[in-house]
Amino acid sequence: MPAEEVAQPNPPADPSHIPESILDLRVQLNICDALTDEERVCIQKFRNAADYIAAAMIFLKGNTLIERRLVPEDIKNRLLGHWGTCPGLVLVYAHLNRLIRKTDCDALYVVGPGHGAPGILACLWLENSLSAYMPEYSQDKAGLTKLISGFSVPGGFPSHINAQTPGSIHEGGELGYALDVSFGAVMDHPDLVVACVVGDGEAETGPTATAWHGYKYIDPAESGAVLPIVHANGFKISERTIYGTMDDKELTALFTGYGYLVRFVEDLDNIDLDLAASMEWALNEIRNIQKAARSGKPIVKPRWPVLILRTPKGWGGPKCIHGKFIEGSFRSHQVPLPKCKEDPEELSALQGWLSSYHPEQLFDKDGVPIPEILSIVPKTRNKKLGQRKEANANYRCLDVPDWTKMGVSRDSQHSSMKVVGEFLHDVIERNPTTFRMFCPDELESNKLDAVLRDSGRNFQWDVASRAKGGRIIELLSEHTCQGMLQGYTLTGRTGLFPSYEAFLGIVHTMMVQYSKFVKMANETSWRHGFGSLNYVETSTWARQEHNGFSHQNPSFIGAILNLKPALARVYLPPDANCFLSTMAHCLRAKNYINLMVGSKQPTPVWLSPEEADLLSYSSGLQHCIAGASVWKFASVDGGVDPDVVLVGIGVEVTFEVIAAAALLHKHIPELRVRVVNVTDLMILGAHGTHPHALSDLDFKSLFTEDRPVHFNYHGYAIELKGWLFGRPNLHRVSIEGYREEGTTTSPFDMMLANHTSRYHLAASAVRSAGVHNARVQVRSHELATLFMHMASDDKKYIYKHGKDPEDTFDTPTFV
Amino acid sequence: MPAEEVAQPNPPADPSHIPESILDLRVQLNICDALTDEERVCIQKFRNAADYIAAAMIFLKGNTLIERRLVPEDIKNRLLGHWGTCPGLVLVYAHLNRLIRKTDCDALYVVGPGHGAPGILACLWLENSLSAYMPEYSQDKAGLTKLISGFSVPGGFPSHINAQTPGSIHEGGELGYALDVSFGAVMDHPDLVVACVVGDGEAETGPTATAWHGYKYIDPAESGAVLPIVHANGFKISERTIYGTMDDKELTALFTGYGYLVRFVEDLDNIDLDLAASMEWALNEIRNIQKAARSGKPIVKPRWPVLILRTPKGWGGPKCIHGKFIEGSFRSHQVPLPKCKEDPEELSALQGWLSSYHPEQLFDKDGVPIPEILSIVPKTRNKKLGQRKEANANYRCLDVPDWTKMGVSRDSQHSSMKVVGEFLHDVIERNPTTFRMFCPDELESNKLDAVLRDSGRNFQWDVASRAKGGRIIELLSEHTCQGMLQGYTLTGRTGLFPSYEAFLGIVHTMMVQYSKFVKMANETSWRHGFGSLNYVETSTWARQEHNGFSHQNPSFIGAILNLKPALARVYLPPDANCFLSTMAHCLRAKNYINLMVGSKQPTPVWLSPEEADLLSYSSGLQHCIAGASVWKFASVDGGVDPDVVLVGIGVEVTFEVIAAAALLHKHIPELRVRVVNVTDLMILGAHGTHPHALSDLDFKSLFTEDRPVHFNYHGYAIELKGWLFGRPNLHRVSIEGYREEGTTTSPFDMMLANHTSRYHLAASAVRSAGVHNARVQVRSHELATLFMHMASDDKKYIYKHGKDPEDTFDTPTFV
Repeated sequence: MPAEEVAQPNPPADPSHIPESILDLRVQLNICDALTDEERVCIQKFRNAADYIAAAMIFLKGNTLIERRLVPEDIKNRLLGHWGTCPGLVLVYAHLNRLIRKTDCDALYVVGPGHGAPGILACLWLENSLSAYMPEYSQDKAGLTKLISGFSVPGGFPSHINAQTPGSIHEGGELGYALDVSFGAVMDHPDLVVACVVGDGEAETGPTATAWHGYKYIDPAESGAVLPIVHANGFKISERTIYGTMDDKELTALFTGYGYLVRFVEDLDNIDLDLAASMEWALNEIRNIQKAARSGKPIVKPRWPVLILRTPKGWGGPKCIHGKFIEGSFRSHQVPLPKCKEDPEELSALQGWLSSYHPEQLFDKDGVPIPEILSIVPKTRNKKLGQRKEANANYRCLDVPDWTKMGVSRDSQHSSMKVVGEFLHDVIERNPTTFRMFCPDELESNKLDAVLRDSGRNFQWDVASRAKGGRIIELLSEHTCQGMLQGYTLTGRTGLFPSYEAFLGIVHTMMVQYSKFVKMANETSWRHGFGSLNYVETSTWARQEHNGFSHQNPSFIGAILNLKPALARVYLPPDANCFLSTMAHCLRAKNYINLMVGSKQPTPVWLSPEEADLLSYSSGLQHCIAGASVWKFASVDGGVDPDVVLVGIGVEVTFEVIAAAALLHKHIPELRVRVVNVTDLMILGAHGTHPHALSDLDFKSLFTEDRPVHFNYHGYAIELKGWLFGRPNLHRVSIEGYREEGTTTSPFDMMLANHTSRYHLAASAVRSAGVHNARVQVRSHELATLFMHMASDDKKYIYKHGKDPEDTFDTPTFV
Repeated sequence: MPAEEVAQPNPPADPSHIPESILDLRVQLNICDALTDEERVCIQKFRNAADYIAAAMIFLKGNTLIERRLVPEDIKNRLLGHWGTCPGLVLVYAHLNRLIRKTDCDALYVVGPGHGAPGILACLWLENSLSAYMPEYSQDKAGLTKLISGFSVPGGFPSHINAQTPGSIHEGGELGYALDVSFGAVMDHPDLVVACVVGDGEAETGPTATAWHGYKYIDPAESGAVLPIVHANGFKISERTIYGTMDDKELTALFTGYGYLVRFVEDLDNIDLDLAASMEWALNEIRNIQKAARSGKPIVKPRWPVLILRTPKGWGGPKCIHGKFIEGSFRSHQVPLPKCKEDPEELSALQGWLSSYHPEQLFDKDGVPIPEILSIVPKTRNKKLGQRKEANANYRCLDVPDWTKMGVSRDSQHSSMKVVGEFLHDVIERNPTTFRMFCPDELESNKLDAVLRDSGRNFQWDVASRAKGGRIIELLSEHTCQGMLQGYTLTGRTGLFPSYEAFLGIVHTMMVQYSKFVKMANETSWRHGFGSLNYVETSTWARQEHNGFSHQNPSFIGAILNLKPALARVYLPPDANCFLSTMAHCLRAKNYINLMVGSKQPTPVWLSPEEADLLSYSSGLQHCIAGASVWKFASVDGGVDPDVVLVGIGVEVTFEVIAAAALLHKHIPELRVRVVNVTDLMILGAHGTHPHALSDLDFKSLFTEDRPVHFNYHGYAIELKGWLFGRPNLHRVSIEGYREEGTTTSPFDMMLANHTSRYHLAASAVRSAGVHNARVQVRSHELATLFMHMASDDKKYIYKHGKDPEDTFDTPTFV
């Protein structure tokens, strides 16, 4: 029988050759007394009610409680939604409710298969958590009808869990991140238990496959716990899952290796007893580990519990139709009876299916759930999974130190990262439970090591690594860092993700998904906002001349530029003081996605702390507040009435701008050069396209009306070209940026190879400026040729001597 | 002792609580007789020579054979390179050589830690594979000096393995993909064994963590085998690794669960015996599995071998300096004696270290390796790891069917994917061993299911899934799909990766890394090129109105636009015939990264096969060859002398362009509208920026000199704005595209929400065209208001009725 035809694939057809003895490692429980008969009935009624509502949401536009026999007109015009995962999600929801009632624990529910929205929304309605935020979803017939008929229809709930779903901190559209988000959510929430369902499709993703190690970064003394539940229902969209073909021996071995105690929940005849017993066992294991750690005697390599829940896909739905399996097969993934509006056989199957839940016994005549169902729902608001403050409204702002006290003197040389590291050290000190850093083992390499002086890495797995807890999570998985950061941020705290520039793009789509969550959250009235998601990119292409070509990729800027302007922020502070100012701003700001790009190498400090920020208006320069300014010290006559404007955006390329200005000053003092630095990229967007975008008047005052402007840009030129679109007179603008040229070479060769060197810039300046300055025009060809010769000479020098000419990085002077 | 201070961390300090019995699952071998004494000596000399050269490459610019005592002038000005991983990589190389000599097997070596370039280059020099391609690296003193002194210096080998490294098919700069690439390389190469070293840092990445399941997709009857070697040396850049803290019990359980037979190689006193025995055992296991499958009796769930190689990081390097551990600690990761040029103590340590290899006993006076070393090198060119044709020159072009026979009639409605699926079915049939498709379980959903009619999914893990082998790899991990595709392509074959548009961005950085490899390969004389890397994006945002916001993300186009123009190709074929033409072209083309974006829904076929391609010049239209054309049938007077130009790029947005033209025709017939479709995005780049870019004259003839042009673009507007930069008269251009607006709604609401609807376009057209047409000017405000009212009415209709107005998707007519 081909794979597609297999129903109820558990256990898999072929046993592995692993010795049976491995099965002794599974946890065995006596489940007989896990529930009283009464509890069991109540749970089953809750499940029936939720499964009924979920199924009805996919199909019905009218007759939502099937008070009469279904007719085609009752069926939605378009059937959207995913049934397959719903019964399993509901099962877990019901038992979480029971566990909360019984143990009074604080829980969140993170759902990997976000397409199971009907199941979750049904449960939220049953516990009356929808109407708490959206009164139209009242716990009565009107509210239920709205929920069912409005689902997946314009204006109703969408087909996937999103920020509009109360209690959610994860969307699950792009599979793979639920577990990481859960680990992030429990950090510094010692009492919280996050139950996380991982689908067996999702389990195939790389991010999930490494997320299982997440516990090795959870200190049970200070943080809560994740209860992972692998929902092994055997199928993804149209194919078996890997986990669905793995037998108990394989799964036991795998999860034991990851460090877990494995409990299979698979007694389909007694699933409620099985799951109730298993959840209580799991919570007990968690509490024991926490208790030991909190009493100062932490267990070495504690084996945290994991549940493997084996229930058929689309359990309780139609068994067969047209001679093909539905329940327990991939055909139940989405809409199991796709033609029920036209096909009487399918309509009849739907009638049978929905009736099997006996809705008339689950809701009273006003559509209110019967008391037995409500009896397993947590009693108080904040205990309900849909109304936990951690998920919906928990932002705690940081105590951000005054950075100006850490500012460095102008005209010194400093590594922005070294200086910012000291600042972050203090941020950690002042915010011992609300700030963390997540990094793929690059903190020291990125020269942010000051944060490790009084904190440590929170790696827990053996004595040596457990020596010193701390605020730093370092794990060579950008996906894990990002997922944990998301979970931490969405539950009200603030984090920072420093990364090599080239590798932050690994989480490109995760960041986009996160931005979608935040956008939708901002459109609700009841989510109170989050701290910003903060990235530092350093070890940039301009100074990855040692690691070479694979380490050169500034594309993450472009990812941010595509976001909604309300969220998107990109900063390229030109020196240490500007970086401090930017960092302090970003850590205070809410609801943004902040990307800060800087250098870890010592580079000139161009601006004093006062000039960099708003403290003193006397200087006339508040660079980081304005987002850009004319750098008079590097311009001719302070930049007044220029023939040409040279603009640096980014550290090394700005240095080249200043070097070009000096070069021009030396060779053609009559050329009036204005130097501009842009630290906030967003100001350049055409007026009205971004909240930070300069007015055309301000744009003109920075860049003149019609003089040639040459941008030396850190990123890919195309994105800045697109960002500038709509600004007047763009034909006078040229832009150079990283053009995918590089290898292991010298720093200056990187500038030469990408045409961002002082020589390229100076040549462009003299070529273009002649139009406005006759004395330049006469010499423009001669000078451009000279500058390009200089470039060529330097290149030759570099390849002959294996290093840059000695004076390449001396700070340019204008004497 | 804090983590940073631990040396030689194997085994880890804390044992896990897993019962000891799990250790019975480890493979035990008698290693005593694995090597003759003579073999052992030869291997050790090979290792010493390679380790010596690798270390010298990091440090020495002169005195490269330390024929006299080292002085500071012998030391490079800048010390670059990564020592820590080198001794392990060399160890494996030596033993692979021996295995090849002994068993005559065909092997490739894929190195996850690409920063270990010195070790690999040293071995390549020893086997004389460098000079085969680059005569300057001759196997004598001159060649050795060039190798050592030129490493990591401008003009020499870069610090990471890349395409300039003979025998490599993987760069390893962005860690995580070695294993997937290896699996792709062995597919349809039944005799090939790819030894793949996975570093324990790399092992933390998500892509690697799921790549272990790769064997479940390898049919041992038709494909070769991967021999994975986990190099557990305990440290990454500055922190313990996860694997370095896992004891034998944890690792045994984990890899047993993944499906492997686990062999630890860790007898440091007898490491050559241990590894020789282990490699022979592994090859034997592989051959047994293959033999069974090839004799028609495949083993169910075969347990493939994996080696866990536990050797200290930087093994053989300096033990301690300044009182701190180096060998066996993170300090040996990069340059272990970073100050040896200035610090006499470090220089002396370097002297001691390098002398410990006794180079004078390894090379003769001409710098040639002694015969004992050469005795373990494979004898023939094509057996040497650096000279395998699979890696360096193996491209086999596809037999691509004539697509025009599968073309569909103009004015019909067809799903591009359905039609292309039939074509791909035939491609598979004609190319049974050189073409594969890799997809994250979306083939059927993407309506490419015709490929499954006579082929199958090559999922191997149990009887049901193994029922039918085939050319299709479906695995819910985009990373794995991409990695396997890379390995398959770089070893000479051609693949195709169809994906939901929103989720292809998951492999954004992998694709960029791949493009860097291809760019560098093209700069060598001896790599003969590869098939193109081919992507199909469908289930695009424009028709993800059912799955909603999380499934809407066209950002992968932008990723391609940032690549070197020589590689970058983006096509948005507007209908099924154009898609066929594009697909046929892409499958034949070499060295590109092709992105094809289309629709899986039935949409109008606008062009006949002849119009779509080059077969007939009589029609005057060869749309896909030209990349764009005026669509006369949708234009006023065939588009002659227009007042306004409307441009569609993408399927649904082009439909709206045509609908807008019809709307304008109805309401203001005197407005002269030209409709243009662009199918090859690359033609729009400013002249000279891309090989496909139109000349300014051609650009003008398509878009006029000065008439308003409105682009309705499938992607993010900013990227097209950037791409157009440099074209004249851009102030007359407006661009709409996906603007991150969407949810579960109706298809047309997606157009309305993103301002790509016919109404938005028509309103823009009348607003702008008045300048050139006085009769339009009079009515422009009135008409724009009318169109925006229509938009508003449709929106209201959609939200009231839960669906689009009935006639929204009728093909527009111009009567």
